[in-house]
Amino acid sequence: MKLIKNNLSEKIIIDNYLKKLNFNKKGTFNFENDGAYLYINNNYKLAITSDTISEGTDFFSKDDPKSIAQKITTVNLSDIFAMGAIPHSYILNLLLPNYVSHKWLAAFSNKLKKIQIKYGFYLLGGDLSKSNKLIISSTFFGYINKNLDVSQNKVNINDDIWITGNVGDSKIGLEILKKKISTNLNLKNYFVKKYLYPLPCDLGPLIAKKSSAIKDISDGLIGDLKSMLNDSMGALININNVPLSFKAQKIINNKKNIKIENLLNAGDDYGLIIISNKRFRKEIKSIAKKNKVKISCIGKIITESGIHFDSYINMDNIKKFDHFS
Amino acid sequence: MKLIKNNLSEKIIIDNYLKKLNFNKKGTFNFENDGAYLYINNNYKLAITSDTISEGTDFFSKDDPKSIAQKITTVNLSDIFAMGAIPHSYILNLLLPNYVSHKWLAAFSNKLKKIQIKYGFYLLGGDLSKSNKLIISSTFFGYINKNLDVSQNKVNINDDIWITGNVGDSKIGLEILKKKISTNLNLKNYFVKKYLYPLPCDLGPLIAKKSSAIKDISDGLIGDLKSMLNDSMGALININNVPLSFKAQKIINNKKNIKIENLLNAGDDYGLIIISNKRFRKEIKSIAKKNKVKISCIGKIITESGIHFDSYINMDNIKKFDHFS
Repeated sequence: MKLIKNNLSEKIIIDNYLKKLNFNKKGTFNFENDGAYLYINNNYKLAITSDTISEGTDFFSKDDPKSIAQKITTVNLSDIFAMGAIPHSYILNLLLPNYVSHKWLAAFSNKLKKIQIKYGFYLLGGDLSKSNKLIISSTFFGYINKNLDVSQNKVNINDDIWITGNVGDSKIGLEILKKKISTNLNLKNYFVKKYLYPLPCDLGPLIAKKSSAIKDISDGLIGDLKSMLNDSMGALININNVPLSFKAQKIINNKKNIKIENLLNAGDDYGLIIISNKRFRKEIKSIAKKNKVKISCIGKIITESGIHFDSYINMDNIKKFDHFS
Repeated sequence: MKLIKNNLSEKIIIDNYLKKLNFNKKGTFNFENDGAYLYINNNYKLAITSDTISEGTDFFSKDDPKSIAQKITTVNLSDIFAMGAIPHSYILNLLLPNYVSHKWLAAFSNKLKKIQIKYGFYLLGGDLSKSNKLIISSTFFGYINKNLDVSQNKVNINDDIWITGNVGDSKIGLEILKKKISTNLNLKNYFVKKYLYPLPCDLGPLIAKKSSAIKDISDGLIGDLKSMLNDSMGALININNVPLSFKAQKIINNKKNIKIENLLNAGDDYGLIIISNKRFRKEIKSIAKKNKVKISCIGKIITESGIHFDSYINMDNIKKFDHFS
């Protein structure tokens, strides 16, 4: 038993904050065992993904614990949905610094509970240690039909390239927090919320059977799209179809130093890139509409390798913006 | 893609060191997807456990990477075996500091590969980040018959209390490294190896059906045994039956300041505590013998709560030794 300061022992943290996230599920042993058993229906297999977020890299010191709870779940749920799977359960490895208090843990665990209820998954167990900074590793489990595989890089010539949501809102929020962009309070609140509370897109399992490949946008549209292409293929992007929020368009119209190029490789929006045969175009549109997910067809897979645009784009700007992040 | 120094990008680390640990298993996607699919036979459920080890807490800075590979697998395999399960696969979350080099990664991943081959499991995937110190979180999966549950705290009056292996060797190794115990080179090599390369005990799955409860000794015999008892029950320990290696007995005979009490709560030996009905006594002994595992019956479950000894033990010494760790 490693003791955490602030009168917080491993047992107190588990009893007060983590046990309630078990949802009394069979096999979790209410955190009384070192491990857990996981039961899934015979018709399904497990999808597994794991991500780590660190203070100073993925969030600021002293960020609201609700935002940190949102981020550790979104980075993982986003991968689970991109694999065509439905969230099932997760494991939390918490490395906690001294400033973590009862108040912090209450806010963090309450936010986790809300997200668990929204998407229907529970906490299996985990591990607590002390650390000089806050680091959270989490492994998420989803379930998917045994016979269904969703790839991240099996694409075909002439496939449509779709993306969900908008590009760049989260990045603009980060730049506002870093005081690299100044704007009015209304716009500030909108963008900062997009950065602090990014949401995963749950369209993946609904369109898995109609997709050649799916990936979530975590490192930026261009980077993530590149990783989906085989060396023998490329992408042609219709720059005017790349979806921006109305407010991001407003920022671009008003600020000389921000162009759409600057947002093409913005990370942390967690939309999905969906690559699919064009015969599914109508169905994909209709499923997205039914589920109130904004979806845009931004281009297609072509034979010439690399990322190409239908009008001139200064690629240096993409890199430049990335560099000052 | 987060860049690690020493010309080590995420891609280089994955391609050179981690892909080979996938053992070309279906569903791992050779690290080309952000996640993995896990297939298990319909007759089994998954046992899951997760542990984190940190530089400065669980190992020394600049410890041999082979020792660190042994520790991250042993802490987890030990829990999997204690759950009565057989190792299946694992996830690695690596937080790497600047001093991690190609040479370090080669030694680390080669040792992992050897351990994987020994116990028959493979790497599903994982996550890499930079850090100011080395921290490794890992989630391990085992499989166990769907209808079998191994508890850590369902014990009955008069059950036998068994432990596997010896108590205290690893702790003596740590004290030698800290220069708190001096000894000859032969003894030093023996104990330091026990500390740096602790082995898990794989007896769990073989005796699961005959056990009331099983737990691995990670925090120390007394502490771990206490956590297995319900408040309404206790344990009576026959102090002479607590197993010490011949070399640990030699240390105790020669050093005035080390007594058996000092070793009763020594951690990191990773033997199993097995609590079982005495009608299985003969079978448990014979299974252990067949599998070349040293096993000792050290006492029994009694009605009086707490840990009791059949002869006088100065409990202050247990605490004292623990404090200077």
